[in-house]
Amino acid sequence: MSAAPDAAARVAASFAAQDFMASLGARLTVVDAGRVDIELDVRPGLLQQHGFVHAGVVSAIADSAAGYAALSLLPAGSDVLTAEFKINLLAPARGTRLLARARVVRSGRTLSVCSCDVFALQDGVEKQIALLVSTVFAMRGGT
Amino acid sequence: MSAAPDAAARVAASFAAQDFMASLGARLTVVDAGRVDIELDVRPGLLQQHGFVHAGVVSAIADSAAGYAALSLLPAGSDVLTAEFKINLLAPARGTRLLARARVVRSGRTLSVCSCDVFALQDGVEKQIALLVSTVFAMRGGT
Amino acid sequence: MSAAPDAAARVAASFAAQDFMASLGARLTVVDAGRVDIELDVRPGLLQQHGFVHAGVVSAIADSAAGYAALSLLPAGSDVLTAEFKINLLAPARGTRLLARARVVRSGRTLSVCSCDVFALQDGVEKQIALLVSTVFAMRGGT
Amino acid sequence: MSAAPDAAARVAASFAAQDFMASLGARLTVVDAGRVDIELDVRPGLLQQHGFVHAGVVSAIADSAAGYAALSLLPAGSDVLTAEFKINLLAPARGTRLLARARVVRSGRTLSVCSCDVFALQDGVEKQIALLVSTVFAMRGGT
Repeated sequence: MSAAPDAAARVAASFAAQDFMASLGARLTVVDAGRVDIELDVRPGLLQQHGFVHAGVVSAIADSAAGYAALSLLPAGSDVLTAEFKINLLAPARGTRLLARARVVRSGRTLSVCSCDVFALQDGVEKQIALLVSTVFAMRGGT
Repeated sequence: MSAAPDAAARVAASFAAQDFMASLGARLTVVDAGRVDIELDVRPGLLQQHGFVHAGVVSAIADSAAGYAALSLLPAGSDVLTAEFKINLLAPARGTRLLARARVVRSGRTLSVCSCDVFALQDGVEKQIALLVSTVFAMRGGT
Repeated sequence: MSAAPDAAARVAASFAAQDFMASLGARLTVVDAGRVDIELDVRPGLLQQHGFVHAGVVSAIADSAAGYAALSLLPAGSDVLTAEFKINLLAPARGTRLLARARVVRSGRTLSVCSCDVFALQDGVEKQIALLVSTVFAMRGGT
Repeated sequence: MSAAPDAAARVAASFAAQDFMASLGARLTVVDAGRVDIELDVRPGLLQQHGFVHAGVVSAIADSAAGYAALSLLPAGSDVLTAEFKINLLAPARGTRLLARARVVRSGRTLSVCSCDVFALQDGVEKQIALLVSTVFAMRGGT
């Protein structure tokens, strides 16, 4: 798969426009052809009742990474909306940092399917804590 | 289905311990036997690139409502973890308020299945914007 | 929601063309605007290792019912493909008959979201055994 | 991951007891530690309205492969039930043979998460047509 021209710039611009990503403190760290990484430092304000990162936070960065992986393969002027996603929470999200690594499984004109592995870093060890699979809807030219 | 004794108090205590719900400004508004509602006022800081509420926010309140619906039917000393959820985003999450209404589809000793309809209120009209179905894992006695 | 003209006839014709439905012995029993039921008599050849109906069989009738519920609301000349579905298996599929009851949650020009409750009938009692939610892609005019 | 002793024999015995797999003509071709393949020759009787293999058939072999991948890592005396699965249908299931390749993403005492890629073989070319992710519930000792 080859990235569309300016894909990285377009993904970065869209990410910057997601103010919820800023609220979470999430960072866009990798944009390649069909691959996007988002990272997040764990901090108070993002937790559930056991002190782990809330599934909604894990889902947010995984969903955004997956959507932008899809966008990276679409022509200029495209935009993306998530039609649906499913996430399996494999282990408690505890550690100092979360890393969402998304890739495109199938890139289509209207629908793309993406997956995202989410890892937690704790004491120098990286452990997979979630697996997301999403269907991303492509919009073109202001549609 | 009858709620376990003190279910409302236990759900409220657990909700209060989810600091991410406070970060979002989410409110627990209904706790009944197998039914829980969570509401959220839409505001800057929760949005995606088109100015709609981010799917991660929608997922967060829907997932929490579903988990607490499951908890409302479990015996005292129980706690819940989401094993997985799937969410279909039916329409853009725009409006002044979001309302997540969850119910238990099947309550089990180890696994419960819950669904949650999420509505957006705009100009006095309530429109369904998402449908979540989750599998909730029950833990007992500090397990 | 109002059914498109001839929806019932178009659904019936498409169902008749699904030879796997005939292999299973599945019957199309209800076609309304946005609602479709499919029934199946339980028999040897459809079972898993515990003697319950295989999840693949349950999924097949639920997925078909959901797809046809979507089709019932689309204009003539349309056809449908399932983009994805998720199914929660709530209880063992045992009994003499399965009944899949699908409805459209959101009907769209390109994507529809449908849900399907599957029930098993045993000793005159109807018990829900599965919940499916699917995303259905609409094709028009031989696309 | 190491396979539990006799895992291959236990998986083969359980597969043989699924009479629906025999009805489909599905074959268990690989059983390794956390990895199971199931193959199916495409033939009339398994098709949907466009002449492609029905999503229910694709789901059946993918779900079985995933469940047996989980079983391959569990201790003797264990059995598995699928709690839920989600499948994305990436492309029409056309060709002469389908190949479901499942692996365990996370093996747990009570819940395992598995994924399965399904490929269609046509004219010597193997193309991925589906991606399933499932949650498998482990039962022990006649539980």
